[in-house]
Amino acid sequence: MIILTDGRTDLHAAKTAICVIRYRPSEVVALLDRKSAGRTCGAVLGVGGAIPVVASLADAPEANTLLIGIAPPGGRIPEHWRPIVLEAIGRGLNVVSGLHDFLSDNAEFARAAAERGVELVDLRRSDERDVASGEPFRQGCLRIHTIANDCSCGKMVTAMEVVEGLKRAGLDARFAATGQTGIMVAGSGCAVDRVISDFVSGTAEKLVRADEDGDVVVVEGQGSLFHPRYSGVTLGLLHGVKPDAMIYCYEMGRTAIFDMGVPLPPHRAVIEFYEAAAAVMHPCRVIGIAVNGQRFTADEVAAECQRTEQELGLPTCDVIRDGSEKLVEAVMELRK
Amino acid sequence: MIILTDGRTDLHAAKTAICVIRYRPSEVVALLDRKSAGRTCGAVLGVGGAIPVVASLADAPEANTLLIGIAPPGGRIPEHWRPIVLEAIGRGLNVVSGLHDFLSDNAEFARAAAERGVELVDLRRSDERDVASGEPFRQGCLRIHTIANDCSCGKMVTAMEVVEGLKRAGLDARFAATGQTGIMVAGSGCAVDRVISDFVSGTAEKLVRADEDGDVVVVEGQGSLFHPRYSGVTLGLLHGVKPDAMIYCYEMGRTAIFDMGVPLPPHRAVIEFYEAAAAVMHPCRVIGIAVNGQRFTADEVAAECQRTEQELGLPTCDVIRDGSEKLVEAVMELRK
Repeated sequence: MIILTDGRTDLHAAKTAICVIRYRPSEVVALLDRKSAGRTCGAVLGVGGAIPVVASLADAPEANTLLIGIAPPGGRIPEHWRPIVLEAIGRGLNVVSGLHDFLSDNAEFARAAAERGVELVDLRRSDERDVASGEPFRQGCLRIHTIANDCSCGKMVTAMEVVEGLKRAGLDARFAATGQTGIMVAGSGCAVDRVISDFVSGTAEKLVRADEDGDVVVVEGQGSLFHPRYSGVTLGLLHGVKPDAMIYCYEMGRTAIFDMGVPLPPHRAVIEFYEAAAAVMHPCRVIGIAVNGQRFTADEVAAECQRTEQELGLPTCDVIRDGSEKLVEAVMELRK
Repeated sequence: MIILTDGRTDLHAAKTAICVIRYRPSEVVALLDRKSAGRTCGAVLGVGGAIPVVASLADAPEANTLLIGIAPPGGRIPEHWRPIVLEAIGRGLNVVSGLHDFLSDNAEFARAAAERGVELVDLRRSDERDVASGEPFRQGCLRIHTIANDCSCGKMVTAMEVVEGLKRAGLDARFAATGQTGIMVAGSGCAVDRVISDFVSGTAEKLVRADEDGDVVVVEGQGSLFHPRYSGVTLGLLHGVKPDAMIYCYEMGRTAIFDMGVPLPPHRAVIEFYEAAAAVMHPCRVIGIAVNGQRFTADEVAAECQRTEQELGLPTCDVIRDGSEKLVEAVMELRK
């Protein structure tokens, strides 16, 4: 596949591209980004090593799929992507998107795709129409949920890394994707922020139910209870999952809600509110902390992890730099 | 209009019918309910006095609109309503519905309505696709929000009654409808539980914005932060409205979440959690309590109100029995 980032290669805008390259590097032939063309993914995004960044679809003729790798708030398709999507279709590429605006609802794209015989895949599309049943989950399956003080803090990456660590420890651990990036990486799941609000908890319940035959299911969190736009999505998901424990994620150095300037409360207050909110449905506490230290040096991150661990009394690590062992141990502890 | 209740005339199932009859009695010619046919609305529902209950559309030939007066969880159209809706269309009636299943998406209904030249109105339909902007509201407009420990407690009725009381006190007070029943009564609003979850707060913000030129806007709450199905809707709405104050509603005698058996926490705990959740976005507290005493005698309700007032230290009344004056005074107090 070739991934479109359209000049938005900063860490937030390109998080979908970064995650897909991180977890499915062998499937990515190039990044499509005119601004950074000629460089490598490793140099531009910090992942993907020598995967080239190209200026046009013609520069990556081996691609059979175009993936929209950025997700603007509101999820609309910018007008200037039109010719890129149409060119991809014309070249016989399938197009995969996680936007709210569905490619397949666009008459021009749909007609072109039908004529050329390619697929338009809208990962956020779902027809979820069931309210939560409230039926108890299987007790032998531990439910872990990643949460955060804001969007784009590493909830998906943390969930993935903890699942991988639990698997290495011999457990049947499952990752439940709840957003478009997680779905691209995992190949299944449901983008709960797209679901009709009445059915978010029901959708979350079904995602857990699909994996409750495992030992542990780690459900990727969405948004934040502290985000003025998305807190409803976050609570609907939290109350549908009814986690046994949560892992709290934050980005080091961030002091306000991304893109909105609303100041973030202290971590202790965030954790206490999440625990109170989760406990409305099911006893639950935060058992570990994942620091996203992508903007800092290894030494700075190590100092931050130590500080946070002492202040909050919870195992803390940067899963990308340190691995997820500390968090995996915290989960294993719950099974004793 | 004629209102379909389909044998579900208990206080919960028929809440839409009851509210429309309570607030727009002159527009209702009959209730369509085979089980109770021959009686009056007053006898069956406790509102609507002598409005007749009939067994068929033929018994109310003066009706020009059929209103679906009940809302099953999940909002689907039961198969046995098909002939009733088709008969209504055949008789030239418009059909108004607040269900999640849209009448106009049903090919058979749509075709019949087009042929007969009548309208199918789906009150829950919306195309909300804007995330919250977070821009501050006009300071001179007080935002009041009704909340509850469960569904079907009287949040809409309380909001309506407080608005009427504020108007009598000379204020420019507005009612913002957020559910299908409120929309039926008020003639405008948006059913936020139908909105894509990412856009609930944005929708709530727009509803407030539309009325912020008034002195007070009272926004009807939806669901409950304590409801396993709908808590996400409730929080998205709460955080979009960013209320200055809340009025807490509960139904006397209820001890568990309606239809789900989940025990309800003490009122004090409910209020504290709502205050904590609201304060994430904007300083806010509960300023009064509305007791729904529909299943009890006047004496029992008076005793309950006194008990609650003493226990929680907040003005408490049953707005249907006592009027909303106590709550109106509490709102007026905030403007001083």
